[in-house]
Amino acid sequence: MYRSHTCGQLRIEDKGTQTKLAGWVQKSRDLGGMTFIDLRDRYGLTQLAFNMEVNKELCAKARGLGREFVVQIEGEVVERESKNKKIPTGEIEINVSAITILNAAKTPPFTIENKTDGGEDIRMKYRYLDLRRNPLQDKIRLRHQVGIQTRSYLNDIGFYEIETPYLIKSTPEGARDFVVPSRMNENEFYALPQSPQTFKQLLMISGFDKYFQIVKCFRDEDLRADRQPEFTQIDCEMSFVDREDVLNTFEGLTKHLFSKIRNVELPIFPRMDYDDAIENYGIDKPDVRFEMTIKNLNDVAQNKGFQVFDSSEFVGGICATGSANYTRKQLDALTEWVKRPQIGAKGLVYVKCNEDGTFKSSVDKFFDQDALKTWAESMNAKPGDLLLVLSGNKDAALKQLGELRLEMGNRLELRDSNVFKPLWVVNFPLVEKVEETGHWHAMHHPFTSPNPEDEHLMETDPGAVRANAYDLVINGVEVGGGSIRIHDKNLQQKMFDLLGFTPEEANDQFGFLMNAFEYGAPPHGGVAFGFDRLCALMGGTDSIRDYIAFPKNNSGRDVMIDAPSLLAAEQLDELKISMLKG
Amino acid sequence: MYRSHTCGQLRIEDKGTQTKLAGWVQKSRDLGGMTFIDLRDRYGLTQLAFNMEVNKELCAKARGLGREFVVQIEGEVVERESKNKKIPTGEIEINVSAITILNAAKTPPFTIENKTDGGEDIRMKYRYLDLRRNPLQDKIRLRHQVGIQTRSYLNDIGFYEIETPYLIKSTPEGARDFVVPSRMNENEFYALPQSPQTFKQLLMISGFDKYFQIVKCFRDEDLRADRQPEFTQIDCEMSFVDREDVLNTFEGLTKHLFSKIRNVELPIFPRMDYDDAIENYGIDKPDVRFEMTIKNLNDVAQNKGFQVFDSSEFVGGICATGSANYTRKQLDALTEWVKRPQIGAKGLVYVKCNEDGTFKSSVDKFFDQDALKTWAESMNAKPGDLLLVLSGNKDAALKQLGELRLEMGNRLELRDSNVFKPLWVVNFPLVEKVEETGHWHAMHHPFTSPNPEDEHLMETDPGAVRANAYDLVINGVEVGGGSIRIHDKNLQQKMFDLLGFTPEEANDQFGFLMNAFEYGAPPHGGVAFGFDRLCALMGGTDSIRDYIAFPKNNSGRDVMIDAPSLLAAEQLDELKISMLKG
Repeated sequence: MYRSHTCGQLRIEDKGTQTKLAGWVQKSRDLGGMTFIDLRDRYGLTQLAFNMEVNKELCAKARGLGREFVVQIEGEVVERESKNKKIPTGEIEINVSAITILNAAKTPPFTIENKTDGGEDIRMKYRYLDLRRNPLQDKIRLRHQVGIQTRSYLNDIGFYEIETPYLIKSTPEGARDFVVPSRMNENEFYALPQSPQTFKQLLMISGFDKYFQIVKCFRDEDLRADRQPEFTQIDCEMSFVDREDVLNTFEGLTKHLFSKIRNVELPIFPRMDYDDAIENYGIDKPDVRFEMTIKNLNDVAQNKGFQVFDSSEFVGGICATGSANYTRKQLDALTEWVKRPQIGAKGLVYVKCNEDGTFKSSVDKFFDQDALKTWAESMNAKPGDLLLVLSGNKDAALKQLGELRLEMGNRLELRDSNVFKPLWVVNFPLVEKVEETGHWHAMHHPFTSPNPEDEHLMETDPGAVRANAYDLVINGVEVGGGSIRIHDKNLQQKMFDLLGFTPEEANDQFGFLMNAFEYGAPPHGGVAFGFDRLCALMGGTDSIRDYIAFPKNNSGRDVMIDAPSLLAAEQLDELKISMLKG
Repeated sequence: MYRSHTCGQLRIEDKGTQTKLAGWVQKSRDLGGMTFIDLRDRYGLTQLAFNMEVNKELCAKARGLGREFVVQIEGEVVERESKNKKIPTGEIEINVSAITILNAAKTPPFTIENKTDGGEDIRMKYRYLDLRRNPLQDKIRLRHQVGIQTRSYLNDIGFYEIETPYLIKSTPEGARDFVVPSRMNENEFYALPQSPQTFKQLLMISGFDKYFQIVKCFRDEDLRADRQPEFTQIDCEMSFVDREDVLNTFEGLTKHLFSKIRNVELPIFPRMDYDDAIENYGIDKPDVRFEMTIKNLNDVAQNKGFQVFDSSEFVGGICATGSANYTRKQLDALTEWVKRPQIGAKGLVYVKCNEDGTFKSSVDKFFDQDALKTWAESMNAKPGDLLLVLSGNKDAALKQLGELRLEMGNRLELRDSNVFKPLWVVNFPLVEKVEETGHWHAMHHPFTSPNPEDEHLMETDPGAVRANAYDLVINGVEVGGGSIRIHDKNLQQKMFDLLGFTPEEANDQFGFLMNAFEYGAPPHGGVAFGFDRLCALMGGTDSIRDYIAFPKNNSGRDVMIDAPSLLAAEQLDELKISMLKG
């Protein structure tokens, strides 16, 4: 027994108790004849007290302990003279009678404090030290709790967690697979799963009825910031369900998680059509914590002689409440912001709705006060508001306005990370056209079913077919997505045809699923949540990396263990692999 | 809503209820003017009734339904005339008013019954159909429950489940890694983890105190029967613990699982020294459901003129209770059994302890009745027992006797799969000598600490050093194993030296861990349970394959999806890999 209590456990009620603690030296202070040490473990901090007059040798030993030394102490719980109300153990300290140094520590390369002095790179290299800091301890604990609560909820409503294999078959369509050479099957490779999609569908065909799995998935994509080559999903599937059954089930899960972990009771999740999301928010994952929706101004802004608008497919704007006081400098900066390549607008038109009822605009030359008044009315603007207007190709302008809306939401502090606004986005298009090739591409994946009432359009007007698909969006973050799947072989074949698979390709890659459809496949559907992203959202931060114990950097490297790395020549030989020069 | 109830739900109390069910056609029977169909889902069977006189058209439709058709029906719950007491829904049936065929089914390639007519190969190919059968449904559910209960127990006592990465670094020592070429880091490879060993140790250094994970692990070994290239572990680690803390914690988990899932209350787990296990059971994972321990007969059997024994290092035997009536034929067969190459004995000596107090032996020529009596006394044999004696090199003979003991246990039906006898085997040797090379090899792994009192022998007599390691053994199955780890850099270095790592190799492969030891590593230890094996044991069967939803065959192939498979040329090109001809 290394300890009788943890460092977060002892209280004033324990006064007089003999205790044994073990932990890390957080901090040490010498005050005259006394030395105080904060001893830390996962559970908290406890103050240790040493008196030079009472036990000189022990006190000297305590003074020799550096930061992050691992020690075990014995002593008596006593009441503190100056209490610390900020920590739960703040009313007591330990009058130490013995110290054992369990392990010494070199001075860590950055401070193990809530706010550290270490930069990103050094903290990634010494990730095991960064993880000692409270903010990261809290995030990893939150992730654990999300896992526990997810399993508890889904188990209670009859879901089985069933493991699907990691060494599966490569399917060259879609995102790029990570592959694994098979030594025992010469020249052949396994692939790591991008998701357990086909396996969970097979489990439905097996009659498991309700399946889930918290599972690692792998995608060999060029990494953008905050993407990881391996990531975790809450993967779920249900049989004999329609869309509403699935939405209600996972709305229930989401509410449960926020209630148990954040103590937040979420309201009923509204449903929003994909088309409405794009029209009003310029994006398929709208942040509905704030209004500022996009208004179509074609009727009031075109054909008034302003060539830029007249030649545009679309003119639209957002109304930034109370921002009429934006300075020239601020407006110029905003114009530069929308003109950055990431946004790509050509320019920005503004209209200040002055408190006196007049308007000041960057296009005063073309639009008189009455004209601008009709804009303001179209956008429900009040005196003091600022109208921001973009024009151009409709898809592009909506996207730009969507970005501008989020930016203004940030500036106006309308995006409180402790407020949670969920919604379901529904009725996505089934397929979208890849402009370069003219091919149809599945918006979700090839197993998503069309809305039954649109199925007849699959051959004549594929772009108009709505999918029986849905995304869960919270605060502008796509937390999860799913669909009612195809369970009929002929419809699946039609879908593969539409996506340009030859029958051979379809059979080669998904023959086992197509065959399975012939032996009694039930109607089924499901959802997958991004677990890393959900944890980050629930934790109130944007970055997923802090919620992953050992993340990789943007080059897919683990800089702590230095992976990936070269193989030994014998390993390559055994696999019958040779590397081509780059 | 496809259904208002499941097929396992309705009871006589629901008589008169209008219900909607969905499921698979299990069986169909036509009796005069009536047709009965058993409708199946995960939850059970419900009988559907159709009356030709009442609704001819509907009844005809019902008669057209083949096995495994997926249907939805509506109807009224009515009391059955002839009740079936064997199933929970056996008192009712559904008077069906409407049928919808949700999906047709081809005749399955084998019967979907508790006992099927399908062979192993066809059932593996159509695994999704095999999984519909109750025995497999039950096993997958048991696995789910073991997972749920493991997480619940460990969470309740303060463990966090923390995910460790799957794309890690290859370490050529030990078993063979599966590797994953990195496209973004040219010529470099990740490895899939054989276990999260080093990561869980880093988590202890990070202060997480109690970690667990139910996690997939990967080993590219030549597969023996019932080995899988990917397998699942319950992986655990704790800080500030000694051996007893770890054993008590996981004894608690094991008891919890058996209590919750099998309704079996396990007794306190005895501890047995490795040396005693070998001496008495000939194996380090003794099945202690039955006695029949190995007795050393050197004193009573050597130097009596029987050259075979006199020239042997060791003579030992087991006493098979009540088997003196073995026939000549049975004894010959047993002799052939021990002489098979898998066992490798040269011969088998028997002594029948006759009911009349006399002895009949295959070595009567060399041993008189008095001599054989001393054998019987040494082995606590009673009249009616059969002594089976082997000799030779001690290690080999003990191993052979251990195998023979298990075989006799099977023949005497002493190994009831519904009786569970756990124990901890402790005090393993730290290292063993590889005869071919003369090198020392870690018995557990290089991170296992020596017993502190033996540490001084590491340089002078490594073979005598006991490890602070332990295995959980139940019914002769090694369910789990673990150790108190090394947490001191110098001791770890000494261990690497002993194992023949050059400092460069040690640093290259495990430098991050050695470095981490310098920044305040706490004492720690842990355990890993084989999850697949544990589930099989708890389910009362030997084969792990049935407890894995989608297992691979002995060549590491998934014959259902046909993986591994060839890659497209572009995939190899992107990875800058070319395959050498075999």
